[in-house]
Amino acid sequence: MKPFWDGQPEISRDLACVREMIARCAAAEDADVHAAISQLLSASGKMLRPAFVLLASRFGAPDRDRILRIAAAVEMLHMATLVHDDIIDGAHFRRGVATLNAAKGPRTAVLVGDWLFASCFSLIADIARTENARALSHMVARICAGEIGQSADRFTVHTSRRRYLRRITGKTAALFSLSFYVGAVESGCSEEVQSILRRLGFCVGMCFQIVDDILDFSPGASDIGKPAGSDLVQGVLTLPTILALRADDGGLAKIIRKGPLSRRAAARAARMVGARGGIDAARLEAETYTRRAQREIQRLPPSEARDVLAEVTTRLLNRTW
Amino acid sequence: MKPFWDGQPEISRDLACVREMIARCAAAEDADVHAAISQLLSASGKMLRPAFVLLASRFGAPDRDRILRIAAAVEMLHMATLVHDDIIDGAHFRRGVATLNAAKGPRTAVLVGDWLFASCFSLIADIARTENARALSHMVARICAGEIGQSADRFTVHTSRRRYLRRITGKTAALFSLSFYVGAVESGCSEEVQSILRRLGFCVGMCFQIVDDILDFSPGASDIGKPAGSDLVQGVLTLPTILALRADDGGLAKIIRKGPLSRRAAARAARMVGARGGIDAARLEAETYTRRAQREIQRLPPSEARDVLAEVTTRLLNRTW
Repeated sequence: MKPFWDGQPEISRDLACVREMIARCAAAEDADVHAAISQLLSASGKMLRPAFVLLASRFGAPDRDRILRIAAAVEMLHMATLVHDDIIDGAHFRRGVATLNAAKGPRTAVLVGDWLFASCFSLIADIARTENARALSHMVARICAGEIGQSADRFTVHTSRRRYLRRITGKTAALFSLSFYVGAVESGCSEEVQSILRRLGFCVGMCFQIVDDILDFSPGASDIGKPAGSDLVQGVLTLPTILALRADDGGLAKIIRKGPLSRRAAARAARMVGARGGIDAARLEAETYTRRAQREIQRLPPSEARDVLAEVTTRLLNRTW
Repeated sequence: MKPFWDGQPEISRDLACVREMIARCAAAEDADVHAAISQLLSASGKMLRPAFVLLASRFGAPDRDRILRIAAAVEMLHMATLVHDDIIDGAHFRRGVATLNAAKGPRTAVLVGDWLFASCFSLIADIARTENARALSHMVARICAGEIGQSADRFTVHTSRRRYLRRITGKTAALFSLSFYVGAVESGCSEEVQSILRRLGFCVGMCFQIVDDILDFSPGASDIGKPAGSDLVQGVLTLPTILALRADDGGLAKIIRKGPLSRRAAARAARMVGARGGIDAARLEAETYTRRAQREIQRLPPSEARDVLAEVTTRLLNRTW
């Protein structure tokens, strides 16, 4: 794991417990599942979603073991979508490590993703309050539908900003929002605090995904384990491209419309996106969501957790990986 | 749908409602999901699992709408595993129709399977009793682990009868058992009847899968939409092969151990399985499960539903498709 939570020893320790819990859950299964999950865990990223479950729970009176399990379930759900995304994208690397799909083939990747999905639901059904179990189930359906929408939009230059925002709501912001929300509900926060945290999660998720999509254009993006411009190669139009197309003379649209892009064509298109101001404009949108997030944070009761959230939100906007 | 339930107009009508419910659920999503689900539904098979939910519920006092939804959830779960199985097997046809994977590519197949999984959990979380939601979630994890086990065993001539039975428990009998059980629990059957129906579902599921695996060897197996011997081509050793290997002089084992089999080698191996008595021996095991199922049925309170179960159980043993 990259040292994103190094300044927060308590969160770091809890996230280590979450990883251990997931590994233990996999250890009860066949050796292949265990090996695959261990590999995924060793390359786990910032673990933002479980961290947000933990942070949100601090605004109530959390039962630590219960919250850790819910955090584990949320991370397993995220892992499932990553594993299946890698099959869909035919990706060979993620975070600098060979994907399960590349290392073990689609057979294992499909099954391990399904196992993660199912285990997440098992964990949630066992421990969560009924309303949380429902919210989580609906969320997953929504996330899948979001992914299918992204799939349908490929190589379509008419993808609108609005359609993009709706897509990333389903793909990312919904799960961020849910992470905050389940943490709040399970620790017995007041309804007002639950609502603030749910909206905060949404804004953080939107900002996170827009920044992620911007980083895909930066030459240093290999830090996050993907080659630069990989979205364009896949034909996925993200906010910088969509906003650049508004200032386009037709040259950029022409490249994209052709269908599957070569690495070279994608790099050229990526430069055109920058030259047409798409990256700067997308950055402004990310900043807007960060400001909305900070306003929600100010409405929370003052506490150490609140300070951590304020700091992390700014750091997520300014990150380079 | 093949006319398996033609003699049961009420079940046929209810199954039509189940299909409609699933279609409606998909219609609320993006057009691609809707098209994919419609295609899957048009090629739906005997719909045994939802039919068993419905039949089991008749031993209690079912709330029809609620039971139909649960039946739909169970069928969606089954559809999800079929769609993902087709990716894993690289299958081009199922029940004579092009698989989603072949028609639309793995991208759509992965996502549609995930959407079905998630929608099943949503339905269940919304309506089922908490204990049923839990049982179902655990079951799915178990089914996935069963599939991964099958994957790990490919081309292994040492797969034992016991290991095979454990594998099909996870792969098939668990969901059959659950279908009977949720029908019973949700309609408020006594604990004794719940237990009988759960065990009955297990026996019917075991018999069903063994017969399915026998049919894979029969020349007329193309009726079920797969070419004969397709399990052997995939390197999956089922009961007839496992039992034939006990009477093998080494010739059959040698072919299998070589790894991926050509169509011709698989056909030769399939003939050897028959010649070594593997199919007859597997048939005896299927009959044993049918007898156990009939004993459980006799313990149920006399009713029309009981007569239907007795008739269907025998028909499943003797089916040729």
